[in-house]
This record gives sequence, structure tokens and C-alpha cells, in this order.
Amino acid sequence: MATGDGSAHPFGSANTVASMTAARGFASDNCSGAHPRVVEAITSVNHGHVGSYGADPETDRLDDLVRAEFGPDARIFPMLNGTGTNIAALRAMARPHQAVICPETAHLAIDETAAPEAIAGLKLLTVPTPDGKLTPEIAHTRLADPDDIPHVAWPKVVSIAQASELGTVYTPQQVRALADFAHSHGMLLHMDGARLANAAAALDVGLAEAGAAHGVDVLSLGANKNGTVFGEAVVFIDAPGAPDFARGLADDFEVLRKGSLQLSSKMRFISAQLVAILEGGLWRELALKANRAAAAIGEAVAWIDGVELAQPVEANIVFIALGLEKARAFSDLCAPHRPLIFPLGDVGLVRLVGSWDSQVEDVDRVVADLLSVLPQGRGTASSG
Amino acid sequence: MATGDGSAHPFGSANTVASMTAARGFASDNCSGAHPRVVEAITSVNHGHVGSYGADPETDRLDDLVRAEFGPDARIFPMLNGTGTNIAALRAMARPHQAVICPETAHLAIDETAAPEAIAGLKLLTVPTPDGKLTPEIAHTRLADPDDIPHVAWPKVVSIAQASELGTVYTPQQVRALADFAHSHGMLLHMDGARLANAAAALDVGLAEAGAAHGVDVLSLGANKNGTVFGEAVVFIDAPGAPDFARGLADDFEVLRKGSLQLSSKMRFISAQLVAILEGGLWRELALKANRAAAAIGEAVAWIDGVELAQPVEANIVFIALGLEKARAFSDLCAPHRPLIFPLGDVGLVRLVGSWDSQVEDVDRVVADLLSVLPQGRGTASSG
Amino acid sequence: MATGDGSAHPFGSANTVASMTAARGFASDNCSGAHPRVVEAITSVNHGHVGSYGADPETDRLDDLVRAEFGPDARIFPMLNGTGTNIAALRAMARPHQAVICPETAHLAIDETAAPEAIAGLKLLTVPTPDGKLTPEIAHTRLADPDDIPHVAWPKVVSIAQASELGTVYTPQQVRALADFAHSHGMLLHMDGARLANAAAALDVGLAEAGAAHGVDVLSLGANKNGTVFGEAVVFIDAPGAPDFARGLADDFEVLRKGSLQLSSKMRFISAQLVAILEGGLWRELALKANRAAAAIGEAVAWIDGVELAQPVEANIVFIALGLEKARAFSDLCAPHRPLIFPLGDVGLVRLVGSWDSQVEDVDRVVADLLSVLPQGRGTASSG
Amino acid sequence: MATGDGSAHPFGSANTVASMTAARGFASDNCSGAHPRVVEAITSVNHGHVGSYGADPETDRLDDLVRAEFGPDARIFPMLNGTGTNIAALRAMARPHQAVICPETAHLAIDETAAPEAIAGLKLLTVPTPDGKLTPEIAHTRLADPDDIPHVAWPKVVSIAQASELGTVYTPQQVRALADFAHSHGMLLHMDGARLANAAAALDVGLAEAGAAHGVDVLSLGANKNGTVFGEAVVFIDAPGAPDFARGLADDFEVLRKGSLQLSSKMRFISAQLVAILEGGLWRELALKANRAAAAIGEAVAWIDGVELAQPVEANIVFIALGLEKARAFSDLCAPHRPLIFPLGDVGLVRLVGSWDSQVEDVDRVVADLLSVLPQGRGTASSG
Repeated sequence: MATGDGSAHPFGSANTVASMTAARGFASDNCSGAHPRVVEAITSVNHGHVGSYGADPETDRLDDLVRAEFGPDARIFPMLNGTGTNIAALRAMARPHQAVICPETAHLAIDETAAPEAIAGLKLLTVPTPDGKLTPEIAHTRLADPDDIPHVAWPKVVSIAQASELGTVYTPQQVRALADFAHSHGMLLHMDGARLANAAAALDVGLAEAGAAHGVDVLSLGANKNGTVFGEAVVFIDAPGAPDFARGLADDFEVLRKGSLQLSSKMRFISAQLVAILEGGLWRELALKANRAAAAIGEAVAWIDGVELAQPVEANIVFIALGLEKARAFSDLCAPHRPLIFPLGDVGLVRLVGSWDSQVEDVDRVVADLLSVLPQGRGTASSG
Repeated sequence: MATGDGSAHPFGSANTVASMTAARGFASDNCSGAHPRVVEAITSVNHGHVGSYGADPETDRLDDLVRAEFGPDARIFPMLNGTGTNIAALRAMARPHQAVICPETAHLAIDETAAPEAIAGLKLLTVPTPDGKLTPEIAHTRLADPDDIPHVAWPKVVSIAQASELGTVYTPQQVRALADFAHSHGMLLHMDGARLANAAAALDVGLAEAGAAHGVDVLSLGANKNGTVFGEAVVFIDAPGAPDFARGLADDFEVLRKGSLQLSSKMRFISAQLVAILEGGLWRELALKANRAAAAIGEAVAWIDGVELAQPVEANIVFIALGLEKARAFSDLCAPHRPLIFPLGDVGLVRLVGSWDSQVEDVDRVVADLLSVLPQGRGTASSG
Repeated sequence: MATGDGSAHPFGSANTVASMTAARGFASDNCSGAHPRVVEAITSVNHGHVGSYGADPETDRLDDLVRAEFGPDARIFPMLNGTGTNIAALRAMARPHQAVICPETAHLAIDETAAPEAIAGLKLLTVPTPDGKLTPEIAHTRLADPDDIPHVAWPKVVSIAQASELGTVYTPQQVRALADFAHSHGMLLHMDGARLANAAAALDVGLAEAGAAHGVDVLSLGANKNGTVFGEAVVFIDAPGAPDFARGLADDFEVLRKGSLQLSSKMRFISAQLVAILEGGLWRELALKANRAAAAIGEAVAWIDGVELAQPVEANIVFIALGLEKARAFSDLCAPHRPLIFPLGDVGLVRLVGSWDSQVEDVDRVVADLLSVLPQGRGTASSG
Repeated sequence: MATGDGSAHPFGSANTVASMTAARGFASDNCSGAHPRVVEAITSVNHGHVGSYGADPETDRLDDLVRAEFGPDARIFPMLNGTGTNIAALRAMARPHQAVICPETAHLAIDETAAPEAIAGLKLLTVPTPDGKLTPEIAHTRLADPDDIPHVAWPKVVSIAQASELGTVYTPQQVRALADFAHSHGMLLHMDGARLANAAAALDVGLAEAGAAHGVDVLSLGANKNGTVFGEAVVFIDAPGAPDFARGLADDFEVLRKGSLQLSSKMRFISAQLVAILEGGLWRELALKANRAAAAIGEAVAWIDGVELAQPVEANIVFIALGLEKARAFSDLCAPHRPLIFPLGDVGLVRLVGSWDSQVEDVDRVVADLLSVLPQGRGTASSG
């Protein structure tokens, strides 16, 4: 830790905070609740009858907002959860027996059970990356040889997460390079934007600028981690510059959404939440708080001996590398109910995730937890 | 209509009501919003961090409530929507290439696109029924001959809806007969309880007594039509008297729920809503209002010449049969945005559905709409 | 039976034949072996190495034959078995969650377990028919209402079997009417030609004339029942007059065939067999023998009291209706290992199928078996 | 090459052979035909009618043979092709959304399009290996953490190929170690025995000893590469020592085979071929010829400068590494129609596969082709 005295600590006294009952932590941005304005949005549309399944004024309003942000041909489809959003998006982009190139750390590859396989019938061509981000060079290694058709599964989609599952962020140029790569090989570009708001806030650009404006064909637009009660969306960009084979992808999507078990009957309640976070830039405000918490943890960690950041902290995720036993102890302290560790031989990676409601004292507390498992303890660290 | 003077009309003057802007109608119980107490429940659990994916106190509380209602071995899994609930439930009961016996009017067969087929890999063995309800005799016609294995798809599940899609209600004895039939043929009994509350209210029994207590193995527990913002549930009953092959069905269900794209990350918000409608019998209060509206429409229709009820009104659904052209006109009046008609040759069936928020004046208005398309008009009807 | 004396019996003395060990029967045309010329074809291409998976001269030769028969744009894909042929064909015509209209007696609906559902993700919209044959009027009853999208499964294919599973045959005019109906509703026409040779022989036309030339888009070309060791084929017709949406269906089929587990590695052996039955009209010769046997049984049955033909005998299948108990006895006699009965209340339908190798004495024997279970016995019948 | 004069060449004069039209090569063991005794077996059972779908004496005879070889509880199911065999076997071992650990070079992972995913709904957890063979240590890296259920796809099967796709062979001890590893982690062991005969011949043991006797639960028994016209089989071992969860896997397999589009109607023709290669050890005789050809190529290559064996030659596959351009030239010479190259940066791996019908002169010719693309030519090599 930077200094020995509490006053110099940027978040005040960790001692005090550490004794509090932890109401908020960094186990996951799914552990947070919803922003009050989002809940108010639910309340505000909760009167009378409207058309079900999206035939309601709130969904119309969302359509308008999305076209304003993502372009006149963009179409948004509210969805129920993140996995369903990704799987349904991919089903619109590729047929069974085709393949998707993605990082081996992709949520799609690791955290969606075998739904891409069992529901969409797709093979994931995973590839190691240094930082959770694909590049054209890395993706190129999973291209197939036309001579191997029909034996090989043919890649039809490149899928990237913005921000990535390792907390890194693609620059617009990097997205564009991947889009050009994908399109030039007859593939489409999918962006898993479960944390798109965090990426856009980190880049200090709008939601579209963080990917859709730079060649993404289909976007999984995250909202739940950003502060909603539930609900996500698929956005088909259909950008003017897109190749022909990237057009019309939304044509059957009403059926695919229903068939992917993702159609909300009282859709006004999802649409209202999406409107709430899109309008007036609430999404950015919430994402920035999550990002700042992660940054603060990252900055604190940089001062501590015996631990290091496994990845640069660019959005709201921090990966801390320390000895495996200490990592376990730290994880037990800050997330007693669910281990946060990825063991890598003797090293344990601990993942911490900032939420839209993270507070200064929460950062303080987790840093204190970290210090407490290190041999020097907090006092030692202050003199280190 | 029964009488010519407004005063005798049980809901007051239809003339006045007919000129109102229709805020509530009978197009579907999905068109209604959520009960205020349900929204309050969302607000009341919206503080601090809790475990995601169901590791939260509200889901624990729901577990307790469900065991109290459905038996000590019952297990509830909150889900995202109705189709997902049914499909995931069936996936727990049957393997791909097996079959499900259900009425040809089943929601499963008609209103869930080909999700039972494409996601669960099941064949639906549909069968005509007079009233939307299976009986052992009717279901028996779809049994297969063991000599036809492996060519035929083998039925593993009998699926019934309580209340049925035609608005009729199974008595507990009828459910028991179907359970005995299913079990004696090595099949399981699934109940689509999208409107279970309406059925239980109609039967004047508890939710379990409306099916689960009488041999149902797996229940799709509806909540959304009953007055929630979103969320349904699968309940595995695992009743003491169930046959061996009906036990342990929930064992893999955590994976099937995730893999069926139905796992909510901030599950506390579904659980809190389910708790809200289960606790204190709110479910019954809301279902009764919906049922009463349907009953009132049904009673009014019984007085009107030239129209008739196509099914007895037992829950919250009314099927009105009238000439096809008049049916179209009536549908256009009371649901301008989405036709409510099922054409049957020269006859049009119009489906009206009572909601938890239906009011006397809504009934009045729809009856007035109906009268207005009939040749006699309202005045004539009064003298009819 | 027509007459009491053996000399008048069109096939000689049944008494003698009945005492023979039954080497050939009418349980199914799958019970027969392969025509010697087909086996010779396997032998004749069994030398040296050729390209696997279809890159061989025999497959090229088959291509040429098929284009000559089915038109210059027709493409044939050899397949491994009948169910795989139908399923892969349908996968080329419709996406998961779409639907197929077919008779409720279709092989697809009854005898392919739930493979259309589990592998292709399709819903079968089955419909009763008097004779196993669809008409536009009958198929029309399963069309969906666009207002019901996305809830309903949308029919994309009409599938008919030529000859039908009830042994009846579509005339070219009837096929054309169904093709026009399908196309005018945005659907494709699939023909399950497991017994196409029998139908074409019955119609006294070529294979193409029995369907493909009259609007069929994709044909399952049967060969195994017609006398091969194994092997069937999918033929994409791509006829000049077909609508735009019926073109290019074969484009991804190499992948679908592989992914449908139907790609033969040593494909020359299938191609050679198909060439053998196509060249010189062997297919017709074999089909005619099967048809004649069925016709002969049908003619004999027409003379017998207490039994009747349930369907006209148009191809190589005979359905005999008699009392259920007698039907069971008859089935036990002529197919001891596998019942041939379809029970219909008090009546049992017995299905008999002529094969390419059926002989006069086989017909004699089965007729004798039938007579022996009837109360009058053979003598009585002769005087009947 | 060892010597400059033809007399010292172990297979005679390459010059002469090189000018021959290549009737047999090493592009794949799928390019070969069928052994005459196998074709005779087809002919010998081609008389009269027998039960279809396996109810025939030849299939009974196969059952007996398989029980004699693989144990009294072993059950064999004849199948149509290799991909279908693997996919159906896996479907019997794991449910959709589960996972299979296999080498990244597995046929399953590379050469079966996305059928494991699209048909079986399984995720493949691939892992790099030095030699195409899993070890418990390597497989261990893909185990999942129970804390990650239900998010992660849970491995239920370890799948290995005997011989491996890189031409290496598992010893019985290595198979046993993998079986123990799999079983101790609640997983089953699948063996893709597309080249089981080659492996058993190389190990100089029986077919069962090459895997099934050492803990394999389900075996894909290859026959086609071993010299049949078509046909493979799934064998469920059900060994006395197997864990409880490895028992009864065959129970539903009749349905899975049909549903996996792999049921042969005239099954006697597959069974007869399998009997032909199993009886009298024809399988071993044929496999040894293929292995010897590979060994001979390998021995020749060992003498040549500028090329090397990328893997030890243990069965019938040889991987030759040489400069990429030369590799292309070599591939064009010995397999003009289909490249045999796997590019690895500047190096090209050329795969050659011995067949049951490979002859000395074929080896000679391919070695001559190799020499002809090397700078030194044949003469230089002799002095190298």
C-alpha cells in the first residue's frame, strides 16, 4: 500500500471499513442490484394494458433511441438474459455446423455451458490471446482450408467481447481491423457487449463508437450489469458500408428470439429499463463508477509488494496475481460464498469486478482484505 | 343483452363506457402490467449486493414457501419466461427423440414456434379434444406399440395445461386419473401452469391442490399472467407416492436451465416477485379478479342472441362464437392491433381473456362492443 | 379364392406352395436382398484407389445420368439410408423452428423416430388424408396465419411420399397442383421417393416424370427398396420454372450431408449401385415385379369374403382389412417375427409389400395363409 | 535415400515404378476399395428374405463373435459411417450441454464438421498433445471446477483414437491409465477405433486387448478403412470392472442409432462384412499390410536428407516434415486431386496413409516422388 498513514490513503481509513459488514463487494457486477431510476422506469410504465411481445409504446420509443444511436437501419430486439442474447445473435449469423472464432477466455466459450453448441449447433474455434482480445493475426490461425470442406466446421463469425472478459478494451481501430478481417473472409463480426457501457465509458465515446460504428454486424447489448433489473438486447446494425452478406440478418429474428426462449411477453418492462439507461447517458454514469472502482483497486495493487496486475485495468475488471494460497485466503475474505480464483500453477488469479454502485469504502475494504493475507500485513506494506 | 335499460345492466351504462378510451381490454392477460405489490417487492430487495444466479436470501425464502406449499421434496427453479419454462421442464423429463402427448390446442403445440422440437428434440403427439383437456382415453390413442421401437418416437410425457388453453379447468380427480394413466405407462405428467392461479382460484383450492398434489411430476408455475413484471418457475414435485422413474428429475436441472437460456443473473428480482404473489395469497386475489371478469362476460353473452359460448367459462378465458364477419368486426373494435379470431368455416371464435386488473367497466365496454356489431344493435338485444 | 380347383388358380397349386419353407414374404421390401446386377456393380468398381467422399469416376458417371434424367441443373448427392436422406433434404429446405406439412401417415411422421424434430429442428404439421395423399385443399388446413408469427411454427415445406405409405400414387397433375400450391405460399415441395421407382412404374413414366418434372424441388431418391445393398440419394432439381426461393438449395448441402452423418467415404460403392439401377431401366424392371406381386395379392383378396382392400393397390403395397383376431392370426402366419398389423378398433389392417424379387409362388402362399385364417377355409372360399 | 543403385533399394527400381499410372496411393485409406472376401460375404448372404433392421441371422452371428471377442456383456450395433458411429456413441454417453475431452488433433474435433456440437449438443474440450495421444496429465488440464456449475460445460467423456490421428498407438497400460483417470472423475472413456485394427496389429494383440479390455466403455469399431465396402459399429463393452455409471449405456441405443440416422434397413449386409473381417483374423492381415507400407515409407524417409518424420510411425500413418514449397510439390505429385499438406509456418507436413491393399511398388513410387522434389534428386540422396 502506498503510505502508512490513513490520511494519505486515498479512500480514508481501511481499518474502520474492514470491520463493517460487507454489503457490496467485487465478486461480480451481477451481484449488484438495479439503479433506482431503472426501477422507477418500470413503475412509470406500469399502468393499463398495452400490446404484448413488443407492440407497445415503450418499445417504439426504444426503437427510436437505438436508431438515433446506432444508425437509421439499426434494429433492436429486447432479450431476457445475456446467454440467450449471445446465442440468439449467433443463430442469426450462422447455421448449425458452422463455426465461430473467439478467444479461449470468451464468456461464450467458458460461461455459457454448451449452449452455443447444443442450441445453436455451432463449433467454437477458440484461440489463446495475451489479453483476452482477438487480433486479425490471432483470428487468422483458426481459419479453415476450403479444401477441407465439408469435413471441417467453417467459420462464419468472429466474436469479440467489448470490454473483454479480461477487462481489456478494444480501440475503435482494433474493432475496425477485425471487421475488415472478418468481412474479407466472408465472416460476420459479433460483439458481446455485456460490458459495452464500461468499454464506451473507458474509451470516452458513445455506445455505437465503441464498436457498432466500426464494422460490428450484430451486437449483444448488455444492460443488466450496467444497472437494470433484467433485460438485454440484440442490435442488428446493418451499416451502410457492410458487405451484402451482412445484410438482412434480422429478417427471421422474431422467430429466432421466440425459438431461443427469449421473447418477453410484457416487453414494455424491458424496453422501459433500456430507455432509462440509454436516455440522458445514465449508462455512462453507471459504467464510470464501476470503472473507477476497478481503477482504484488497480492503482492500490500497483503499490503492494508480492502481488501484481495480470492485465491492465481498462474497464471495470481487475485481475490480481498472487501466490495461490494467499489468493485463496483473499478470495475467502472478500467473497466467502463463491471462490473468485483462477489457479495457474503456483499463482492464483483473483478477479474483482466493479459495479455501478461501487463506493470508495468498498475499494478500501477489498484492498484491506488483500493486505491482510499478505505476509507483511498492512503495516509492513506501508513501510515497503 | 338481458335488458333494455341501463339500470338493469349489471355493470351500469355501456353507452358511457363505450366512448371511453380503452385502457384495459381482454386481448390477453399478457397485456396487463404488474400488481403494485409485485413492483414493491422488486424495490424492497433492491439494496446492496447478494449472490447472483440464485445464491441470495430471497431465493432461499422462495424455496421455503414452495416446500411449504408443494411438499418437503419440492424444488423450485425461477425462470425467465413461459416458453423457456415449458421447454426446460420437458428437457428434464424426456430425451431428444422421445415424445410428448398433448392436446392439439396446447400452447406447447401452437404458440411456442418449434421450440419443443428444435430445442428439446421432442415430437409432440397432439390429439383433438372437445374442451382442451386430455383424458386417459384420449391420451391413450397416441400411445405407441413397443414393436415399433426404434422407428416410432416413444411418448415419455403427458403434458396438460391448467387452466387449459380453452379456459377449462381439470378437477383434481381428472389430474389424478391422468397421472395414474401416465405413470402406469412409464410416462411422466407435466402441467403447464401458465394460468395455474386461475385454475386454483376457480377450484377454490390451493396451488398444489390444483395439480401437484394429484400426481403431477413437473409443474411450469406461471406468474407473469398472474401479475408479475417477469418471471416464472419450474417446480419439481418429487411427491412421496411418485414412481421411481419420476424421482431425481431435478438433478441436472441447474445445467438445463442455464443451457435453456433461462438462468437469471440477478435472480433475487424474480424470487421476490414470486414470493410477493405466493405470500398472503395475492395470487388468488388476482386470479379471482381475472376469473370474475371472464365469468361476467360469459354471463352477458349467454343473454345475447346470435352469439354463444364455445366453451364453458371456468377460469379467465371466454370463447365467443359468432358469424365470421361479425367476429372480425368485434375483434377490430376490442383489439384493433391484433386479431383475436380463430376462424372455423363460417364461424369466428373470439377469445377474450380476463386479467388481474380487469374492472367492471372493462366488461361493460367489451359487451357493448359485441352488441354493436350484432344486427339488432343494443336496443334490439334488450328486447330479444 | 376364386375357384376350388388348383388348375383355375392363376398361380398354380397353393397346397404345394403352402408347405414350402417361406424364403420370401411380404413383410417389407426391406427384407429382400439386392439384385445380382447391383452386387456386380460393386464388384466391378472394386479395384485400385479412387478419390474418397465422391471424388471418383463412378460418382461423376452418376452425375451425368442424373442430369440426363432430371434436367441439366439437377444435382445428386448419394446418401447412406432413407431416414438420413429425408432429414438432410429437409434441412436444406427449412431452418430450425420452421414447419413441414405432411400426411399423418407419412414415414417422416411415424417411422423416423423424432429425427425431423431432434436433428432438423422442424415441426411436422400432420394432417389426416383418406388415402395417404395430400391435396392442396388438405394441406391448406395447416397453413398458418401471419398474425401468429413468431408464435406459430411457419410451414416452409410440403412433403409428400411417392408412392405414398398407403400404396397410392400421385398423378403428375396432382404433384403439379401441390407444387403450385406450395410455391404460391412461399413453400417448397419435397418428395420422399423411397418407392419412387414403384410409382413411376405404376404410372408407366420415367423417374423424373413421376414428380421432379412437375414441380418437386428436392427429391429423396430411394434405391434400397428397389434392390440395392445400401444407399439412397438426395436430388436437387432446380428446375427452370422454379421460383427464386427454390434455387440454390444445394449450395450448402455438402456440409449438411456430412453434418447429417450421411457422407460415405468410399462413395463409389453407392454411386455404382445407383448407376446400376438407373442404367438400362433396371429400376423399372424391379419395381414392376414388386408392383405386380401387390396387384396379384389385391386381385386375389377381392375375391375373398370377409376381407377387403383398405386402399386401392396402385404400387407395391396392399392393405387388407379383416377382423382383428383373424388379422393377428394371418400376420403370425406370414410374418412370425414382426406383426404387420395396424389395429383399428375391431378391424386389423395387414400391410403386405411386394419386393423386387417377389415370385408367383410367394403370392400364392400368402393368399393361402390368408384363406387359412378365415372361417370358411380355402374350400369354402372357392365356392364363395 | 540409402543407396544410389536400384538394386539396393528395398523395393526395386523406383524409376520404373514412377512412370506407371498410379493406381494406388497413400492419400487416405478411404481411397482403397474392399477386400474380395468382404465382397464375397455380401454375395453370400444375398439370397431370400430376412428380417430388416438387424433381425437377421448374420447379425446374430456377429453378436456371437463380438461377445467372444469383447466379453459376454458386450453389445454391438452395426452403423453406417464413421462420423455417425462416433456421434451416436457420444450421444449414448453424454447429454446435450455436457463436454468431451479430446486431443485437438482428434477426428472428432477437426473432421466431423460441427456434428458433435450440432447433433449431440456437446462441447469438445480440446487440448494440445505432442503425439496425438491424451495422457491423464494432459486431460486433467481440461477438468472443470464444480464451483463453475452450471456455467461451465461439464466433461462426461474422455475420447481417444486408437490408433491416433497422428499415427501413434496407445499401449494397453496407457489406455488403462486413461480409463482409471476418467472413471475416477465420473467420466466415461470412448475410443474412436476407426483404425483399431491397425493399432491392434501394431501392438500384436487382439482387438479387445487394444483398448476394450483395459477400461474403454464405448468403442467405435472401425471397419471401412480396414477393407469393407461400408459399415462400422458401436460396441458397448459393459466390462465387469466398470463403475456403475458406465453400465446400461446401450439401453436406449436402438433409438439413438435410428435417431442419429445410422440404422441400416438391410443390416445383414453390414453384419456379413463385419463377420468377414472378424472371422479368421482377416482384420489383422489387412491391417498389417497397411502398417507395413507405412513402416516402409518411414524407414525410407529416415535415410533422406532434408526431410524427417514428424511422428514415430506406429500404425499405418506417416507424417513427413519438409520445406513448405517442397511439401506442396510432393503432395501435388502423389495426390494431384487433394492436397495432403498441413502447413506449419515454413514447414509442410505431408500425411501418407497405408491401406490394406498397399503394395511394395506403391511405397517405391511415393518415395521416388519424394526424392524428385528434393534439391539433390535421387542421386544426391544416395550419397547423402
